[in-house]
Amino acid sequence: MAPSNLVRTTVRTMSGYAPGEQPAPGERVVKLNTNENPYPPSPRVMEAIQAVDVEMLRRYPHPLADRFRESCARLWSVEANQIIAGNGSDDILTIATRTFVPPGGSIASPDPSYSLYPVLARLEDARHVGVPWLDGFGLPIEALIATRASAIYLANPNAPTGTVVEIAEIAKLARAFAGLVLVDEAYGDFWGQSAVPLVKDFANVVVSRSLSKGYALAGLRFGYGVAQSGVIDEMMKVKDSYNCDAISIVAATAAIEDQAHASRGWENVRLERERMTHHLSELGFKVIPSQANFVLATVPGGDGRRFYEGLRRQGILVRYFDKPGLSDKLRITVGTGQENDALIAGLLTMIEKQQAA
Amino acid sequence: MAPSNLVRTTVRTMSGYAPGEQPAPGERVVKLNTNENPYPPSPRVMEAIQAVDVEMLRRYPHPLADRFRESCARLWSVEANQIIAGNGSDDILTIATRTFVPPGGSIASPDPSYSLYPVLARLEDARHVGVPWLDGFGLPIEALIATRASAIYLANPNAPTGTVVEIAEIAKLARAFAGLVLVDEAYGDFWGQSAVPLVKDFANVVVSRSLSKGYALAGLRFGYGVAQSGVIDEMMKVKDSYNCDAISIVAATAAIEDQAHASRGWENVRLERERMTHHLSELGFKVIPSQANFVLATVPGGDGRRFYEGLRRQGILVRYFDKPGLSDKLRITVGTGQENDALIAGLLTMIEKQQAA
Repeated sequence: MAPSNLVRTTVRTMSGYAPGEQPAPGERVVKLNTNENPYPPSPRVMEAIQAVDVEMLRRYPHPLADRFRESCARLWSVEANQIIAGNGSDDILTIATRTFVPPGGSIASPDPSYSLYPVLARLEDARHVGVPWLDGFGLPIEALIATRASAIYLANPNAPTGTVVEIAEIAKLARAFAGLVLVDEAYGDFWGQSAVPLVKDFANVVVSRSLSKGYALAGLRFGYGVAQSGVIDEMMKVKDSYNCDAISIVAATAAIEDQAHASRGWENVRLERERMTHHLSELGFKVIPSQANFVLATVPGGDGRRFYEGLRRQGILVRYFDKPGLSDKLRITVGTGQENDALIAGLLTMIEKQQAA
Repeated sequence: MAPSNLVRTTVRTMSGYAPGEQPAPGERVVKLNTNENPYPPSPRVMEAIQAVDVEMLRRYPHPLADRFRESCARLWSVEANQIIAGNGSDDILTIATRTFVPPGGSIASPDPSYSLYPVLARLEDARHVGVPWLDGFGLPIEALIATRASAIYLANPNAPTGTVVEIAEIAKLARAFAGLVLVDEAYGDFWGQSAVPLVKDFANVVVSRSLSKGYALAGLRFGYGVAQSGVIDEMMKVKDSYNCDAISIVAATAAIEDQAHASRGWENVRLERERMTHHLSELGFKVIPSQANFVLATVPGGDGRRFYEGLRRQGILVRYFDKPGLSDKLRITVGTGQENDALIAGLLTMIEKQQAA
């Protein structure tokens, strides 16, 4: 234990964010618990990494990752100075929080959503206010604005539900709200729509995107934010000077320049998502229609933990949240066809055993 | 410009940290301005990068970088749970600030020192208090304690002076001070001494180390902190969940496991540092004896900017700080023998021209 007078109270009295479990190297599991892309990244990424030379390692990287920003700006038809690169989109979320949310302020988000948001608020000595989704996961615009929060964080598609808010709704929110609207599109590629075009009209919109899921680069840690250039300038003051390393910059650039490869993966995930949803429904699961690379499914009988543990014993990892409103559900990442078959077979085994008992 | 009500006042009214300039790729310069190691990293690092496979990229990395922590713990004869890995030692400094310094608190450091510290304090809505070094760059223990700061940040060797405080002095400070003593040993390898053994006795000591300089891996972004395990636990709550990427973890591990390679580099830097100091002195520069991989030198005549610009025109980059107490000085990174010869020749040209005029 650290001496109690050393660590600031906010940190001492909080729990950190708990990432999903990672199997040991070599452990054979079907890993459907942390929303990784089931397909490999573009071969151009591997080529970029193979071409890394000693000088790229010895010298500091470009502090703003300009090579990436230029490619990324072309992709979105914006200017390079509207992009900030980050060490994963978690870095972008941290930078945004430190740029826009003062100590004593607050972050509001529809609830449930990404469990990192309350941690980010807490670290800033700010509050997090969860506002229940409207029926059918509609955006509670009025209730969000009524919180008078410093910022509204919206995961779209949302985690862990996989549901989406239409871009026109986000525009309504941005128009009616004076503070920051951060649209966290970590799963945006699997949907195919984006709030990026909103930044033209709304100075208070920041869109954060990740290469972890859509580009199969969770191990690389690369994400970015898009906003008006004056907003990006402020975020640049807050980031660590060299927050992206030289290897990740060339690899991320190679990845977004190969849209054809990435798009094929997104399409496959969508097909597998439909197939998984169909099979889960047949087994008696209630699946919320998802636009992400995972589904949130209510288990038959309502005991989510039992299914989570039963799958685990069969070497199949899914995510279980021991929280009100989520304890009867599993969040299952869409895997390859083979992985999804293993999941369905594993669930079938459990259900048959239960019926026999 | 961002709307003034959007960005928090602290950020809006501050300037960010200004990293040293980076030449464009392919630009031919003698780069002695950002304290990179002049020698390449261990060949084992390149081997580790060549061995990166698709699965390492597709999956999230180990959230705590345990493979690195285990090797690093052996190196320092501590436990793995006494190590926190970071995305560069700047990440460790940011994490420490957010763990130990409350909004409204303060960070004290001897002055002058690393210009990032005031930025870190500011971002935390805390103050930075600079305390002048004692004569001969002695540690102003009493004056530092009298600031009643939340934390004392000590760069050792110091930047931009290259001077050192003996470990016994740091122990005195840690014993007399209740708050955090952060010893920033980014340049520690070129000296060869460390405050790491102090963490055994002092719960309030955190030592931060970097692989950027000592291991020639500035492009990789990897650093770490060493402290008592209970202190590390608190810092873990504050870091981003996956702050180190999978490639940097294997590369950094390979680097610290090749101590023989790294040590040869440190020894060469020390030899070149002596030679550079000798030649600069011959040219009329006053050089502060340095234990880092750079020297701080007062220029003959006192116009630091003129020398900085004159060298720049010759394609030689050094660092100039336009600040009281530093404007008559240049901070010059120790390069390879050839680079240092180019620097000395460049200065000689300028001085001869001046004498001819």
